[in-house]
Amino acid sequence: MSVAPWRGDLAGALHRNRRLPYARYLQLATIGADGRPANRTVVFRGFEENSDRLQIITDARSQKVGQITENAWGEACWYFPKTREQFRLSGRSILVGADCTEAFLQRARRTAWEKLSDRAREGFAWPQPGQPRAGLEAFEVATPDPSEPLPQFCLLLLDPDRVDLLQLRSHPHDRRLYLRQEDGTWLVREVNP
Amino acid sequence: MSVAPWRGDLAGALHRNRRLPYARYLQLATIGADGRPANRTVVFRGFEENSDRLQIITDARSQKVGQITENAWGEACWYFPKTREQFRLSGRSILVGADCTEAFLQRARRTAWEKLSDRAREGFAWPQPGQPRAGLEAFEVATPDPSEPLPQFCLLLLDPDRVDLLQLRSHPHDRRLYLRQEDGTWLVREVNP
Repeated sequence: MSVAPWRGDLAGALHRNRRLPYARYLQLATIGADGRPANRTVVFRGFEENSDRLQIITDARSQKVGQITENAWGEACWYFPKTREQFRLSGRSILVGADCTEAFLQRARRTAWEKLSDRAREGFAWPQPGQPRAGLEAFEVATPDPSEPLPQFCLLLLDPDRVDLLQLRSHPHDRRLYLRQEDGTWLVREVNP
Repeated sequence: MSVAPWRGDLAGALHRNRRLPYARYLQLATIGADGRPANRTVVFRGFEENSDRLQIITDARSQKVGQITENAWGEACWYFPKTREQFRLSGRSILVGADCTEAFLQRARRTAWEKLSDRAREGFAWPQPGQPRAGLEAFEVATPDPSEPLPQFCLLLLDPDRVDLLQLRSHPHDRRLYLRQEDGTWLVREVNP
């Protein structure tokens, strides 16, 4: 498989911002059951193998999982502070939970789980997110098995079909749109910032 | 007017992250005409006077202005890298354009324009955003009058009625919801992260 043309720009931004751990944080917008937009920070966990889908992890009990189940559309906004570049990645998300029967997706989910630290894995055993605050003892959980994802561990794959790159370092700024066509190829257009 | 209870948390985060210029950048999610969520980085320009509304500036020709005109709901996600705090601010946005007849809003719009650098003001005289890239000469614009906003200069006021604060530095993390009631007072709830 050939990678999408915006992957080179993104790889460059990731490389040049690599000293900032939070350069791997992006904001994922979805639509809530109440019709309002929802927006939160997530962590980029690399691309799915042989794919242009971004890997993100989440708790199946979080609001975004319910939102994406109802409406798969999302837009991630990813700002790179050092190089002053913004990527807007719009597309559908796919959720890979414990009940997913696609073997290659379950493998990707398991691999993502294995790569986590013990501490990060423990977070998935914490009490239900968003509920009234539980006592401290409820957060003292056993260290989960690193080889067996907890049922609430969910892999989220964002599949962009439109990428809007804005580069603020040049004057005037540079802006480029990448648009995926029906046949899977990408159109590239230079537009006004 | 008394300020909303989350303002103290936000002031603290702004202060402790003040050495990072991009700590004033946040991501504003809206809903597009195509029903997809849209998400982009904007700059916090302080609070409106005697109000809890966040001031943001935008070009009236940008997509977000059309989106907000159709659907005022938005959620801003604001991550502070140094203190590892995230504020999610959900509410309606109000647009203050050249045709707004409210005198106090026009004053706020004019003040926001006056505070910009010449270079930032010039950006509002650039060719139409998102259109096919114009030649370089189209970006060589006269320096706009600092005392008279260009017609395309628009002030955006985000009026949060729900604020979700997540603090990642503690273990377990801390999370608090602020919910505005009908009477304008705020409920505060500690919830699970």
